[in-house]
Amino acid sequence: MSLRPLGDHLETLRTDSPLVHCITNYVAMNSTANVLLAAGASPAMLHAPEEVAEFTAISAALSINIGTISSHWADAMLTAVATADQHAIPWVLDPVAVGATHYRQSLCQQLLAFNPCVIRGNPSEILALCGLDSRGRGVDSTAHTDDAIAAAITLAQQQRCVVAMTGEQDIVTDGNNHYAIAGGHPLMPRVTTLGCGLSALVAAFVAARVEAPLGATAAALSCFAIAGQRAGSTATGPGSFQVALLDALYQLTPDDLTTHSQLETVDVF
Amino acid sequence: MSLRPLGDHLETLRTDSPLVHCITNYVAMNSTANVLLAAGASPAMLHAPEEVAEFTAISAALSINIGTISSHWADAMLTAVATADQHAIPWVLDPVAVGATHYRQSLCQQLLAFNPCVIRGNPSEILALCGLDSRGRGVDSTAHTDDAIAAAITLAQQQRCVVAMTGEQDIVTDGNNHYAIAGGHPLMPRVTTLGCGLSALVAAFVAARVEAPLGATAAALSCFAIAGQRAGSTATGPGSFQVALLDALYQLTPDDLTTHSQLETVDVF
Amino acid sequence: MSLRPLGDHLETLRTDSPLVHCITNYVAMNSTANVLLAAGASPAMLHAPEEVAEFTAISAALSINIGTISSHWADAMLTAVATADQHAIPWVLDPVAVGATHYRQSLCQQLLAFNPCVIRGNPSEILALCGLDSRGRGVDSTAHTDDAIAAAITLAQQQRCVVAMTGEQDIVTDGNNHYAIAGGHPLMPRVTTLGCGLSALVAAFVAARVEAPLGATAAALSCFAIAGQRAGSTATGPGSFQVALLDALYQLTPDDLTTHSQLETVDVF
Repeated sequence: MSLRPLGDHLETLRTDSPLVHCITNYVAMNSTANVLLAAGASPAMLHAPEEVAEFTAISAALSINIGTISSHWADAMLTAVATADQHAIPWVLDPVAVGATHYRQSLCQQLLAFNPCVIRGNPSEILALCGLDSRGRGVDSTAHTDDAIAAAITLAQQQRCVVAMTGEQDIVTDGNNHYAIAGGHPLMPRVTTLGCGLSALVAAFVAARVEAPLGATAAALSCFAIAGQRAGSTATGPGSFQVALLDALYQLTPDDLTTHSQLETVDVF
Repeated sequence: MSLRPLGDHLETLRTDSPLVHCITNYVAMNSTANVLLAAGASPAMLHAPEEVAEFTAISAALSINIGTISSHWADAMLTAVATADQHAIPWVLDPVAVGATHYRQSLCQQLLAFNPCVIRGNPSEILALCGLDSRGRGVDSTAHTDDAIAAAITLAQQQRCVVAMTGEQDIVTDGNNHYAIAGGHPLMPRVTTLGCGLSALVAAFVAARVEAPLGATAAALSCFAIAGQRAGSTATGPGSFQVALLDALYQLTPDDLTTHSQLETVDVF
Repeated sequence: MSLRPLGDHLETLRTDSPLVHCITNYVAMNSTANVLLAAGASPAMLHAPEEVAEFTAISAALSINIGTISSHWADAMLTAVATADQHAIPWVLDPVAVGATHYRQSLCQQLLAFNPCVIRGNPSEILALCGLDSRGRGVDSTAHTDDAIAAAITLAQQQRCVVAMTGEQDIVTDGNNHYAIAGGHPLMPRVTTLGCGLSALVAAFVAARVEAPLGATAAALSCFAIAGQRAGSTATGPGSFQVALLDALYQLTPDDLTTHSQLETVDVF
């Protein structure tokens, strides 16, 4: 299967500026909104039971992240994903630290019943979602990407969705076609909630509906990979890296994205 | 009516470092505190029912922002504004996305009963507060400023308060006198929660009580407009813009503010 | 008593990358996570009653900060500190604005019963914890450090813990041995939640368990003091200062820390 040029997704995102409803963790809210704005999308964050369904229904995409979950927030997420599912609004699940506690595993199982369009996690989280031992510790991933590719593909097939597994190398798969995306920078894990922001960016790209979610997800991951490389070339530490990453996301053009993405087909035997 | 030199407000703010109690949204908390500190005020954020009235009563001003509202937070806001109203402590309302859901409209009507000193919003929000169709979408404003000036003036007259409507051009009015403030930079809407920070800055300026709130509000908006222009002259994207904006707010002197503000009287026929 | 070279603590922290469970205020969450990541630790933030004890038990240290406290969060904190106390996991208390309201004083008394390893506060907060008049106003300290040293020592003796009192000059004491730490920069109080981040950094250093908590706390404070000086030498305001501080924490080496720390014994008569 061949994907459309990745820049097509960014071009549509910039034109449409899709409204991305984010229900995310407290740590990530500000940085996620800034990632979406830098790339050209329109973030919104609200979660009250009095309004969450009303608002999800008018959004172009929904991004769900369980980082600092508690019961009221879990209720809001379940209402939002049910609404999204009902209105065919694409939504993305970021299962932060799902392997760390039983509460997270149980909540993710409930959320998965509402047909996410994309799941974006690190290898530990993808393994845990598959019911495999995650060896995860808190929010950091300790599993090697290579170990987890099979789990990502299995999860995509089970859920009939796209799985984006990010780490030193990124993998994106819809269960049938699999891509590896290179790029990024070693400073990325030294800045908090970049993965959370990436999940929301995936939602923004999927909202553009240029083609099936596999291509949109690959485009979002490639944006981050290229912007990360560029930010890393000037940064002197994680503080300046985060600033430079937002600038690089803003400066990235559709042509840039098409030309500089490092996307390769992954063959699985 | 002629206003005092705008720098007089900043000079008093720097001397007094007023304690500004902020009950704001999760996305904006950190950036709002940094805006207040950079300008010279003292932010504080707390909301528990056990202490919110006790703390509001010792504050110099209160800033209320409904961005990520839920019922416990709404209760805290209502307690705080009742306390502020009772103690003649000036308070500012930022009605984020008020037109987006019925819940927000209802809450804002409850809050307005407690006599805000200033309302700061974008054109969509000001139109929605007036009961007019906001055409708003999420937190971004889609209404053209020119369309909304009449609504701002009407709202100021109805509420007997100052209304600050910000966008490409800023308008500030007390219902009788109206000013337009130029400046700022196109990168400003690409950084999240700058408007929220500006609302809190208005509270800090009003707390200085140099003259009636109209002048203080114009001074706060002019601060942001000048600092935004300066930040935009060096920034290479929204990441570096946000950093430069805080530096510019910190570096701005009272003389600077008086000299470089672009304030014009608006005549309405 | 002589301390081990302070760099030994940083070396172990970098090797172990201890998992630091933070239950902190909304304003500080993002910046605290970034401080920990820049220094080399692994932050995690969660608080739901369904999982908080399970997670504290697998953490290397716990950091508790009451900045934006409310009853659900207070419950989570009490569960977490009880778990930490039971498992001999060191925990740090940051009693933000404890003198400002009765609610905070009552909560801190409850928390203190669970044997914090370190208390990190400003002079007003330390005085208030000792039951003395804090003259505090909101989250900013108005008490002079010199006035409060006796209170810090008394508190350390009463609680059998380390007390770190930070301000223009930092003091660290275990009730028997007392050190003053110089460094830092006047821009530090103009950036929000740096003190909160420092408290979490103390937790990361204590987790390294190189020697008794007194040395670890002195090492964490010295890190901040040196990084603050370096950041201040290039910053043009609080925005660029915060960015440079994270870069400086990341760049700081164990040798640097040992060589450049400005630690002096304080004699109390």
